Amino acid sequence: MIYFDNAATTYPKPECVYKALDKANREMAFNAGRGSYKKAKELSIKIDETRQLVADIIKADKNNVIFKTSATSALNNIILGLKWNEGDNIYVSPFEHNSVMRPLEYIKQKFNVNIIILPFDNISWNISDEAWDMFALKRPKCIICSSKSNVTGYKLPINEIFKEGKKYNSINVLDASQSFGIDRDITKVDTDFIVFAGHKSLYASFGIAGFVKLSNVDLETIEFGGTGSDSLNLNMPEELPNKYEPSSKNIIAIMGLNESLKWLQKTDIEKKEKELTEYMYNKLKNIPKVRIYVPTNKKKCVGILSINIEGYSADEVGSILDEEFDIAVRTGYHCAPLVHNFIDSLHFNGTVRISVNYFNSKEEIDKLVEAVKTL
Amino acid sequence: MIYFDNAATTYPKPECVYKALDKANREMAFNAGRGSYKKAKELSIKIDETRQLVADIIKADKNNVIFKTSATSALNNIILGLKWNEGDNIYVSPFEHNSVMRPLEYIKQKFNVNIIILPFDNISWNISDEAWDMFALKRPKCIICSSKSNVTGYKLPINEIFKEGKKYNSINVLDASQSFGIDRDITKVDTDFIVFAGHKSLYASFGIAGFVKLSNVDLETIEFGGTGSDSLNLNMPEELPNKYEPSSKNIIAIMGLNESLKWLQKTDIEKKEKELTEYMYNKLKNIPKVRIYVPTNKKKCVGILSINIEGYSADEVGSILDEEFDIAVRTGYHCAPLVHNFIDSLHFNGTVRISVNYFNSKEEIDKLVEAVKTL
Repeated sequence: MIYFDNAATTYPKPECVYKALDKANREMAFNAGRGSYKKAKELSIKIDETRQLVADIIKADKNNVIFKTSATSALNNIILGLKWNEGDNIYVSPFEHNSVMRPLEYIKQKFNVNIIILPFDNISWNISDEAWDMFALKRPKCIICSSKSNVTGYKLPINEIFKEGKKYNSINVLDASQSFGIDRDITKVDTDFIVFAGHKSLYASFGIAGFVKLSNVDLETIEFGGTGSDSLNLNMPEELPNKYEPSSKNIIAIMGLNESLKWLQKTDIEKKEKELTEYMYNKLKNIPKVRIYVPTNKKKCVGILSINIEGYSADEVGSILDEEFDIAVRTGYHCAPLVHNFIDSLHFNGTVRISVNYFNSKEEIDKLVEAVKTL
Repeated sequence: MIYFDNAATTYPKPECVYKALDKANREMAFNAGRGSYKKAKELSIKIDETRQLVADIIKADKNNVIFKTSATSALNNIILGLKWNEGDNIYVSPFEHNSVMRPLEYIKQKFNVNIIILPFDNISWNISDEAWDMFALKRPKCIICSSKSNVTGYKLPINEIFKEGKKYNSINVLDASQSFGIDRDITKVDTDFIVFAGHKSLYASFGIAGFVKLSNVDLETIEFGGTGSDSLNLNMPEELPNKYEPSSKNIIAIMGLNESLKWLQKTDIEKKEKELTEYMYNKLKNIPKVRIYVPTNKKKCVGILSINIEGYSADEVGSILDEEFDIAVRTGYHCAPLVHNFIDSLHFNGTVRISVNYFNSKEEIDKLVEAVKTL
């Protein structure tokens, strides 16, 4: 199988991650920090070390790195944990995932807040100037943006948007599920929270993700349980990270992340992704029936290209690629409810998404291109 | 190391589980059901098969098996998802874990409900008859009980309590984290929800747990995100299990559970646990300085014994066992805020908890007993 569904989850992982996961399962699968024995204490140190590795990426304090089991859980903790009032204006881009849009829909129904879609030009995909007029008119309480679209690979102008939002003291939330640890630009963004997904851009396994708290904006706890600390107290402890981390830690997934983060430090993923994306774009653009969803400046799409083929629904293309060529792509809406209107892919029932990772090759892309040409 | 912290997490797991986890990491770590390719579809079938294996244990419909990442998350989904009104009476046992008590404390502060501790006789540990008078006076809207205390190994009279509660149409919630899949008695209990923890009684890894919905009592969703289905809809889908399962599935942990459940079918864990517990009790009871926390009928404690040693705090005993004898026990309050008052262990700062699993041996218990005798 040729695997091009890396935006859903990167595969394969580096060999060192597989080894770390197996070793952790066999030798380290204890309940960290909650016992009074050496192994449990050693695990606490390993967890701390992993927090530090995450923190180093964006120059944060390690205790502000909150581990959750998924980016969805991290976004729920932030969106449901912020304090909302009726009439608050929450801005999002048209590229957001349902892990942002569905918690927001709940907040909207509960608190009667306004969810406002930021205006993007649908040729250049730049943020429209009128966005800033909207900010002045309807001041942003909060802006939630992904660093990179999970559908089109488009790197959003988050720096520009968040900077403008900060003029109104906006609470900025960056969903970096698709690029944390890979895209160095995101480390400079003025954001209050940043979300990461271990099994995506960080080449770790399922089961580990989280967010980093980068300012003093407070979040109420939305999950409650044992923390192995202050057990006679029925309230969650106040200190971070424990405040937001009830339940036993998934030490297996954390040890995989520990290893993958060290691997990432010495691997230039983005360079490889850019090379492969450019190569793929140049091959696909000459096929007459292929429509590629990119902005004027194609280089803004990295690692992911969404396409469609005239005369086929997205699902039909996916099935043919799978059944006849053993090529795995993802088709449909990709849990992104707004973007298909923006890029005009609704009549194809979404897009055919081709997403690469560090381990893909130009030869694999050649095979994909040949397959597409038969359609 | 001799490992006696199985109530925190069972260790080791059966070899077949380690193999399944490694295989899943290397060959199956895709995003299940969300792609349009064979592998993604195969995973959906495997997940369904695992749901069926869980459902079979308590004769439920597989679609009512909701996978969450931890029992804590499952209990949050139930406790925060139920509909509460001011003055509702919620009964709990004195044995409950903070994964029950902390979500309840939140509910109490938010809705002004009454949290009532069920009266247990502190010699026999039987439920007191006055409990039923309390039910008549303050009708139970909900009863939340663990099947087995994580501190003392005591099997609670859940059948009796839940049956009495049902006379008042109580919503019954069984936290079976410590005994799901092992204790066959719990399959007969009249409960609306039952919670399981993969990494504990089910000998699977961290990262997989959940609850089974056994009646038509509805839960509001408390977590929101992509489900790979109905993506243009900003609300969570209504059908189970998707309604309560946003985010990518942890297929690795699910495949480990799949294997461990098959192993459990042919393994009599409880018989072994009973043997080891009885053996340990008989050895420890003759040591003068040892206090063992058991009810009149000692056989009601299975798999776990909590002890203390006169002249030592619980933590001191744990440190000596660890440092001098390489024996891992857990000490302290074990995230159970109420039980230490009930068993009178507060002045020891909790208990020394010795918890066994299928892989422990009588020889290991002998070594523990010898170590305790030196104190």
